[in-house]
Amino acid sequence: MRYELRLAGSGGQGVVLAGIVLAEAGLMDGHFVVHSQNYGPEARGGNSVSEVIFSDDEIDYPRALGLDMLIALNQKACNENIGEMKDDGLVIVDSAPVKKVLWGRVLRVPIQREADHTFKDPRVINMLALGVLTPFCPWVSENSLTESITRRMPAKSLELQPEGVSRGYREGQ
Amino acid sequence: MRYELRLAGSGGQGVVLAGIVLAEAGLMDGHFVVHSQNYGPEARGGNSVSEVIFSDDEIDYPRALGLDMLIALNQKACNENIGEMKDDGLVIVDSAPVKKVLWGRVLRVPIQREADHTFKDPRVINMLALGVLTPFCPWVSENSLTESITRRMPAKSLELQPEGVSRGYREGQ
Repeated sequence: MRYELRLAGSGGQGVVLAGIVLAEAGLMDGHFVVHSQNYGPEARGGNSVSEVIFSDDEIDYPRALGLDMLIALNQKACNENIGEMKDDGLVIVDSAPVKKVLWGRVLRVPIQREADHTFKDPRVINMLALGVLTPFCPWVSENSLTESITRRMPAKSLELQPEGVSRGYREGQ
Repeated sequence: MRYELRLAGSGGQGVVLAGIVLAEAGLMDGHFVVHSQNYGPEARGGNSVSEVIFSDDEIDYPRALGLDMLIALNQKACNENIGEMKDDGLVIVDSAPVKKVLWGRVLRVPIQREADHTFKDPRVINMLALGVLTPFCPWVSENSLTESITRRMPAKSLELQPEGVSRGYREGQ
């Protein structure tokens, strides 16, 4: 059993950190996990891609073979990654910047707007996204996610981050 | 051309963050880079392994084929990874905890002691390690490394981190 998830968004939206938090949560839940970022053409073009692979066994091939889940925070991030979805995979998009998703199983959530309006802090977007995806990802529990954030986040931003996650989580549910 | 580097140390020594900082510095210097962490048996046993691959072309196979450089912060981290060195690879170890290195090209630096004594902060160890390795890694410049740290580190720890890097860098030279 193997589960592959990709976060894609523009630089500064914190997808690298979100990937680490998610990977460490998966480890706490007892799985083998590989987290990777590819600083290739996407990173140069302004988009950042962070990938997490969960498995019950050691992971020999650490690159995605087919995505079970894609989280796309802008239109370009969505277009460029959707070709790698598994047939029954789920695409979660930020509904304001991503207008067009050529995929069947899609969840649209106004993630950036929520960060800006509810939290008055655009940087909460990555934690909101983590919260939203967790109810759909059977490899990570809400508890581990919250603990992982507490361990990884700079102390001064800890006030908002767990709140961002749990709000996202409720919305995802 | 491809260059593979692995950082290995115990949890809490910040090798994941060090890997990200290094990868982003390599991107600034115009290379393709993949950074990955494998949360497998090592992570469960208390060691954390972070891998950075630099290349002039897109990186199709993101797992190390043979290490050009290994940075080992404890004896177990050294023992477990040395089998994957390239013949002419360089091993950098923290000289206090790592007593025995079965390898020809070895650089011994008292990294943890330096963090504890000079900086009075054990957490500077990862930045010191980055500084030490940079003069030996032709894929990353000191300038990009410093800029990358400034972008990635929490503001409140920024006072010590760049100083840790430049001290490490002078020692490496």
